[in-house]
Amino acid sequence: MQKIDVKISNALNKIGQNAVSDMLPEVLAAKEHLLKGDAAGNDFLGWVDLPENIDGSMLASLKADVARLAAKSRLMVVIGIGGSYLGARMVIEALQSEFAAMDRSEKPYIVYAGHTLSEDYYAQLLKVLDHEDYTVTVISKSGTTTEPAVAFRIVKAHLVNKYGADEASKRIVAITDARRGALHEIAVQEGYPMYVIPDNVGGRFSVLTPVGLLPIAMAGYDIDKLIAGARDMRNICVNGNTLEDNPALMYAAVRNALYRSGVKVEMMVSCIPNLRYLAEWWKQLYGESEGKEHKGLLPHSISITTDLHSMGQYVQDGERLMMETMVRVEKPHATVPVPTDEQNLDGINYLVGKSLTEINDCAANGTIEAHVSGGVPVVEITVPTLDEYTVGQLIYFFEFACGVSGYTLGVNPFDQPGVEAYKKNMFRLLGKPGF
Amino acid sequence: MQKIDVKISNALNKIGQNAVSDMLPEVLAAKEHLLKGDAAGNDFLGWVDLPENIDGSMLASLKADVARLAAKSRLMVVIGIGGSYLGARMVIEALQSEFAAMDRSEKPYIVYAGHTLSEDYYAQLLKVLDHEDYTVTVISKSGTTTEPAVAFRIVKAHLVNKYGADEASKRIVAITDARRGALHEIAVQEGYPMYVIPDNVGGRFSVLTPVGLLPIAMAGYDIDKLIAGARDMRNICVNGNTLEDNPALMYAAVRNALYRSGVKVEMMVSCIPNLRYLAEWWKQLYGESEGKEHKGLLPHSISITTDLHSMGQYVQDGERLMMETMVRVEKPHATVPVPTDEQNLDGINYLVGKSLTEINDCAANGTIEAHVSGGVPVVEITVPTLDEYTVGQLIYFFEFACGVSGYTLGVNPFDQPGVEAYKKNMFRLLGKPGF
Repeated sequence: MQKIDVKISNALNKIGQNAVSDMLPEVLAAKEHLLKGDAAGNDFLGWVDLPENIDGSMLASLKADVARLAAKSRLMVVIGIGGSYLGARMVIEALQSEFAAMDRSEKPYIVYAGHTLSEDYYAQLLKVLDHEDYTVTVISKSGTTTEPAVAFRIVKAHLVNKYGADEASKRIVAITDARRGALHEIAVQEGYPMYVIPDNVGGRFSVLTPVGLLPIAMAGYDIDKLIAGARDMRNICVNGNTLEDNPALMYAAVRNALYRSGVKVEMMVSCIPNLRYLAEWWKQLYGESEGKEHKGLLPHSISITTDLHSMGQYVQDGERLMMETMVRVEKPHATVPVPTDEQNLDGINYLVGKSLTEINDCAANGTIEAHVSGGVPVVEITVPTLDEYTVGQLIYFFEFACGVSGYTLGVNPFDQPGVEAYKKNMFRLLGKPGF
Repeated sequence: MQKIDVKISNALNKIGQNAVSDMLPEVLAAKEHLLKGDAAGNDFLGWVDLPENIDGSMLASLKADVARLAAKSRLMVVIGIGGSYLGARMVIEALQSEFAAMDRSEKPYIVYAGHTLSEDYYAQLLKVLDHEDYTVTVISKSGTTTEPAVAFRIVKAHLVNKYGADEASKRIVAITDARRGALHEIAVQEGYPMYVIPDNVGGRFSVLTPVGLLPIAMAGYDIDKLIAGARDMRNICVNGNTLEDNPALMYAAVRNALYRSGVKVEMMVSCIPNLRYLAEWWKQLYGESEGKEHKGLLPHSISITTDLHSMGQYVQDGERLMMETMVRVEKPHATVPVPTDEQNLDGINYLVGKSLTEINDCAANGTIEAHVSGGVPVVEITVPTLDEYTVGQLIYFFEFACGVSGYTLGVNPFDQPGVEAYKKNMFRLLGKPGF
């Protein structure tokens, strides 16, 4: 097994190596809090041992349900918001073709709902569902969160209208609380297969529970390999006690050292488009875990070389606020040669014989050099390739580093008190009884 | 005509009304620079009068080419990077279904290339092109920019292989320099229809040139209405001399006043998913125009309510760095009722009878209230609906406000010196002759 590489040599333009090395006692103490469960938020540490604790009979049942549903349909609507869809979407978009919606021949396709209240979005979705054979997974701990509750009513009504109540119930899976809550109750009444969101795993850490595993399996990806990647990375994160041996400690150390030096924004830089939702998942993981008490790095993201032609100017020469965390993938899945051209009017014959990945790597290295000289520290996170196993590694790596980083920052990384603020106002404005 | 509404009453929690009103002389002076062309970057002011200057015979020819190409195919590959694709993509994604890739019955569909060097992306694209009838638009001023040049070689080779050289030449349109450059020369040799990127319009201001108009027309949208919206907004922006009469002056004034008060990040908050690429286009427009000399608001974006469940915690309680610019749309295109449920286990029967748009509006208002009380100023930009006309208004509004804002900030809003930095390094690393 190759571990994820975290390289900080290009992140030392604002701080010295010592500023990072000196973090070791703090990140080790934070790691101990995660392992001993003796600090704030310790009732939400179920994710720490999750890769070792996944119930085999649950997995077998989940795979059987997925096989049954995939035999019925090539399209699944996944209803969920925040941590109830970002993990699955991150894995699926990392692994599927950017044109998966157009080329439906290979694998079932996932569409998302319950993450928006846009009326047009639901009208557009229902139009698609009119002429597709589809199934539904609804994901909500309580079953009363406004967005997924509204979406589930809308989609369920369409499903019942299309297939009748009996068949509709056979096309729905619920992922919810083990014992209580509105969705649990509906699922019991209607006889939906049910999978459990554990009480001690928060939404943003839930991708290795059925919340992520069921949609990922439905999309045709190997969840055993995903879990194996997470399990192997857990061993490294739990057992490594130096920055060099433990990439999660290194990442937590360098980003906290940079934050203390005055950096306010962390920009995840994806080197390939398939990592767009890795950045979205990471934004929730870090923004929601650390953005409290007026602290924390603001998560931002760009994709290169795409956004070098839009945000590149700002990164190079704008306000000096930021660090970058570049996610690199060494080997692509496919080979596309640059065709030669006798006339060479565009002047790019010098690229013929190089792979696109090699050209992209040179662009990334040139970007790092330019941004470092512009005063932007760059952390590099490299995986050998992008598959279920390495994505599983990335998941656990970022989760563990997040727990370590949040404790090092001095916050409870496992609550999210600020998320309620808009909801209370919304309920009052909507005239919800009791608000 | 209803003008775009810019509301700043929720942006005055960090600064007083006077801090905005006092900006009037400065934004008026900046506006005069745009109209007189007497300040830095004045060789790139072609966009100011563009909505009045679009050549009717060019438009007629463009529409004829689009009709010819649409008759051949239902898919167009648009090759371009930065300003050579973001404007078209912004308009198309604002107007098309979020599921347009899956429902190809109504309009031709656009896919993008030349904006990435990802090897897997091109492998995935070529796989789609194997079984689609397609056409190509290639957009590049010089024809030598690495990403689109590489993409054009790859796609052209596929096209020639699929249709033969003669038919391939009939399926390509070039948008490039009027007189010179590699792409101009290739187009002359091969007999591609050619449209001009004017010398005095920079990439990020080019959506109302053929760069944007051709792909937008190909996607089935009414470019006359788009231009009419821009033209009407131009009248307002050019003639309005108070903050109340001129939304572009108001927006430029409030964001500069907030920047001077210490705000470092401007987050565009889209209230519906279709505006995702409005935010991407806006990031280039403002980031590339203002992010220089270590100045400028860092552009960021979220979509609500989606990202209230990921970035909401940070916005509410993280570092106090930011303002928000919320883009609101009053009327949806469709109606989707919330179904009633006798048991009401999910507790949302109180929403039955309200439209989803009303619920979404209450969520937006609740969000504003929460963020304002958390110390985040919120500017609201509202359009009555989202169609070609209002999108045309938004384009000109944001462009004019950007020119005013950049001059007010004290930078040349029309250059982008920092974009070259990574390219020089990349060329050296790739062994390009001369580097």
